[in-house]
Amino acid sequence: MNTGELVELGRQLRVDSVRASAAAGSGHPTSSMSAADLMAVLLANHLRYDFARPAHPGNDRFVLSKGHASPLLYAAYKAAGAIDDEELLTFRKLGSRLEGHPTPQRLPWVETATGSLGQGLPVGVGIALAGKRLDRTDYRVWVLCGDSELAEGSVWEAAEAAGFENLDNLVAIVDVNRLGQRGPTRHGHDLDAYARRFQAFGWHTVEVDGHDVDAVDRAYGEALSTRGQPTAILARTLKGKGVEGVEDREGLHGKPLPDADEAIAELGGPRDLRVRVHEPPAARVLHAVDSRSVELPRWDKGEKAATRDAYGKALAALGTARDDVVALDGEVGDSTRAEFFAKEHPDRYVECYIAEQQMVATAVGIAARGWVPYASTFAAFLTRAYDFVRMAAVSGSGINLVGSHAGVAIGQDGPSQMGLEDLAMMRAVHGSTVLYPCDANQTARLVAAMADLDGIRYLRTSRGGSEVIYGPDEEFPIGGSKVLRSSAEDRMTIVAAGVTVPEALAAADALGREGIPVRVIDLYSVKPVDRATLRQAAEETGCLLTVEDHREEGGLGDAVLDAFGDGRPVPRLVRLAVRTMPGSASPAEQLRAAGIDAESITAAGRLLTEQAVVP
Amino acid sequence: MNTGELVELGRQLRVDSVRASAAAGSGHPTSSMSAADLMAVLLANHLRYDFARPAHPGNDRFVLSKGHASPLLYAAYKAAGAIDDEELLTFRKLGSRLEGHPTPQRLPWVETATGSLGQGLPVGVGIALAGKRLDRTDYRVWVLCGDSELAEGSVWEAAEAAGFENLDNLVAIVDVNRLGQRGPTRHGHDLDAYARRFQAFGWHTVEVDGHDVDAVDRAYGEALSTRGQPTAILARTLKGKGVEGVEDREGLHGKPLPDADEAIAELGGPRDLRVRVHEPPAARVLHAVDSRSVELPRWDKGEKAATRDAYGKALAALGTARDDVVALDGEVGDSTRAEFFAKEHPDRYVECYIAEQQMVATAVGIAARGWVPYASTFAAFLTRAYDFVRMAAVSGSGINLVGSHAGVAIGQDGPSQMGLEDLAMMRAVHGSTVLYPCDANQTARLVAAMADLDGIRYLRTSRGGSEVIYGPDEEFPIGGSKVLRSSAEDRMTIVAAGVTVPEALAAADALGREGIPVRVIDLYSVKPVDRATLRQAAEETGCLLTVEDHREEGGLGDAVLDAFGDGRPVPRLVRLAVRTMPGSASPAEQLRAAGIDAESITAAGRLLTEQAVVP
Repeated sequence: MNTGELVELGRQLRVDSVRASAAAGSGHPTSSMSAADLMAVLLANHLRYDFARPAHPGNDRFVLSKGHASPLLYAAYKAAGAIDDEELLTFRKLGSRLEGHPTPQRLPWVETATGSLGQGLPVGVGIALAGKRLDRTDYRVWVLCGDSELAEGSVWEAAEAAGFENLDNLVAIVDVNRLGQRGPTRHGHDLDAYARRFQAFGWHTVEVDGHDVDAVDRAYGEALSTRGQPTAILARTLKGKGVEGVEDREGLHGKPLPDADEAIAELGGPRDLRVRVHEPPAARVLHAVDSRSVELPRWDKGEKAATRDAYGKALAALGTARDDVVALDGEVGDSTRAEFFAKEHPDRYVECYIAEQQMVATAVGIAARGWVPYASTFAAFLTRAYDFVRMAAVSGSGINLVGSHAGVAIGQDGPSQMGLEDLAMMRAVHGSTVLYPCDANQTARLVAAMADLDGIRYLRTSRGGSEVIYGPDEEFPIGGSKVLRSSAEDRMTIVAAGVTVPEALAAADALGREGIPVRVIDLYSVKPVDRATLRQAAEETGCLLTVEDHREEGGLGDAVLDAFGDGRPVPRLVRLAVRTMPGSASPAEQLRAAGIDAESITAAGRLLTEQAVVP
Repeated sequence: MNTGELVELGRQLRVDSVRASAAAGSGHPTSSMSAADLMAVLLANHLRYDFARPAHPGNDRFVLSKGHASPLLYAAYKAAGAIDDEELLTFRKLGSRLEGHPTPQRLPWVETATGSLGQGLPVGVGIALAGKRLDRTDYRVWVLCGDSELAEGSVWEAAEAAGFENLDNLVAIVDVNRLGQRGPTRHGHDLDAYARRFQAFGWHTVEVDGHDVDAVDRAYGEALSTRGQPTAILARTLKGKGVEGVEDREGLHGKPLPDADEAIAELGGPRDLRVRVHEPPAARVLHAVDSRSVELPRWDKGEKAATRDAYGKALAALGTARDDVVALDGEVGDSTRAEFFAKEHPDRYVECYIAEQQMVATAVGIAARGWVPYASTFAAFLTRAYDFVRMAAVSGSGINLVGSHAGVAIGQDGPSQMGLEDLAMMRAVHGSTVLYPCDANQTARLVAAMADLDGIRYLRTSRGGSEVIYGPDEEFPIGGSKVLRSSAEDRMTIVAAGVTVPEALAAADALGREGIPVRVIDLYSVKPVDRATLRQAAEETGCLLTVEDHREEGGLGDAVLDAFGDGRPVPRLVRLAVRTMPGSASPAEQLRAAGIDAESITAAGRLLTEQAVVP
């Protein structure tokens, strides 16, 4: 498009942003208007995208990091012919695909859900990394950022990763409209301030008037011709641009325009320009799932092995069988054992350094390109990325997260390194799967099974070695459990997982010697739980004792309720969990101090079977 | 100390780091050895600190951001005479104050718990901000960082805040030993790479050989004489410095030295130098809790008000009565209503921009200086700071967090903005208090009550207006609840909180009209829960129906189990919660779609009282 057409297209995008927000009675038209010219030039002259084939491997990828500017995105879809005007006006209404913030669950052209600021660029970095290192296809990734969101550390974590990885297929377009939600940003229209920061992280930068379509056009061209570096385009814009009553004014964030009709008239009235978006170049998908069955590592019963070791070995084996598996780690691969995969499949290993948010964002980005990522760090440090995990679920992203060094059982390192909230955090994520194996063979099976699940899948591993209690051919369906001790006379059921399984078995033996037969369930699938087995145990034994190396809230103890939260009779319950703040001590001392070792289970079990209250 | 003495002190700190780790059989001596000279010069020549009076308001503040280098910290404490050699050798043992990673819960000289990397500098920024803006005392804040942790976005979030706030009382000392846990860092010994980054964020930088004690001494002097900017000292060091077999070598992170005796001999053997640390200057504590009782805002029953409005008004009133209350917000103060406080008490308001990790870190920092922070943003975005909240609990920090716009009830903005995991996340934090008010008077009372609690306190507020159902003089003890409907004939109890309370009341009315009398409990204190009232309701009505605008896992439904997890009989339970991924829709449509509105409660209640299973 030429200058005049681009200007007209920008006005159309503004008009449609105003109209959609007016029809909805809510939304962010002023944030859309500032970026309208940036979007117009991109859509008309630079983006390569087939809206009829969003899965086309050659398509450029566009991420609206400032997800609240969704009216602009939908106005662009309309201009590209992807949606019609009628649909545009369903914005923010029940059942509409056009949500307040865009999600790929509803719209095939959206790469990742945004709306939590500072996440679009990190995911864009992940997609760009996939393009360079995995897909090896020269699609470009365009990320439209707000200026307010540059206050998020995650943006600089992403900038650091992108600069270091020389992602010249990545362009960040920053809509510097100087106004955040409640008032001016830290740096206002000081484009240099942002340029200095991006440059320091190894980026090429271009400063531009974001309403000068020719200048914007040249800036995009400069970005595309830049080699060896990602480019940040810092565009000076005005919030509410084009409508005098709202332009560059405070107090108008996230509100429809006071008088939409007048604003539309001021913008020259509605238009119906159509953009012929450039076709993507031919490209092919590189990864393909190999039909070879996975040859998982095997351990003999009675061997001692840590589940984190089993994770690393199983993942390496999975990577041999499946070309689509990618491993990521937060600079602790020697601890999580992701290094086993790195050694065998260095091309499909991404070292994320100590940057857990970017690690999860990279996983989301490469999953969006069809790869199957496994991202690992200490369970404790996955808390760093919780907002990213939450948003990955909003995206419907299929990613595997693995948290090692769970619980007090790690021993001397102390509470900062102990994942004690991870089960609660991951269980609360919509559609998640939460797995907590207790031995090496079980771990290996679950690692393989995770690959084909939907949504967020979390595996919790342990630092120390434990006895292998299952044979290598045992199967562990997701949503299942294993009954490890059982008799017709059982008077109680102990429900354990991970490191508390051997403690539960020892307690069961001790209680058995006292004449109290008890059942033991290994609830390796914490979500979904094995409702049938838990219900049967409740009916047959009358009471459940749960024991977990995790906080009392939100973990195994709460998970069993999922089998009884529908109005059926609930068995008596006792929950043993970590109730104090641990210090440094040996693993055995930690389990004892937390009251989750065999002796504590035995004592609580004794009381429970006597129908006494457990203090 | 002169050059020779400083060199000797550095060697002593190394020897003691090696000895402590050897005695423990674990720990991070090589990470301690790289920073030993940096610590020696600081302790001997620049730190102003009275170890006998850690609460002295004039004390400098030292934060070991690379918390795993705890042997070095404890060796320094020994050199300063704060601990003796015997205690040094208790490192990492059960009951010792000298944990694997330092915490203020155990040691009075530790400002904040570290061990999750990238958190020390953010908290240091908070302390420095307190010094400048609240305490108005010229203590300096020294933060010893690792180089690996500079990959964390939180470090740059902190750098941005510190640069913008001109914190010239803050010095970051970066121990650039070029080796992370599993291998080299991204930038190795390229000090310029780090300097460029800090400079871009407005910092003064000094590059120095971290083993040249005179150069380090000059660098500290330069930092102290720098005005208007924080200073980052980038020190080139060698991991394991001083012992040839480990110096600058990979694969030795987090391990005692292979031969401690030989290493100690190589370092010249044990020494017992004592450092006379400089006295702090005289200073006084500025804040003091006013004895005036708080005049909280009051609403009449039947008025309509949003709990977020009540939060803002109550906090402003609390700030009037108490000089120690400080409000922080993540650039959404117009939404959370923190702006009400900002308008009345601008001197005690900290605008954190869109940087939730730094917001929580700032809260932790100013709480460490004796202030009472209230930090607010959307409940959804507090997930961004979960690792900081977790570590704040490890610190034993007393901070108030307030999450607004909770649940699907926000309406059109969609799932990215809906806090649906916050109750689970906050309940799982050790020692936390979780509050979820349903009306304005209740909110105001809880806001005031939070100030005097220990640990992490979380308040969840709602976007929309709701009817005031409590009088302004009603009291709401922490750990309490309110029985809103009750009769001797009740056949079921509905447990609700926040936006589901009016829905529960409407459902109770509907069921009453059908001849099914039901009890309604407002469980505003989600943690701790009112066990007595829940148990009584269970005994008297036989079954509980919980209804919450939150995910099924970890919230209200799981919280009630806290009253029944000790082996006593458990009532039949039904949990209504948000089980799908919402889109955009009106608040009423959202509640209906999620199955948590009055009609859904009525339908489920009907089934439950018929002893049927609720699908």
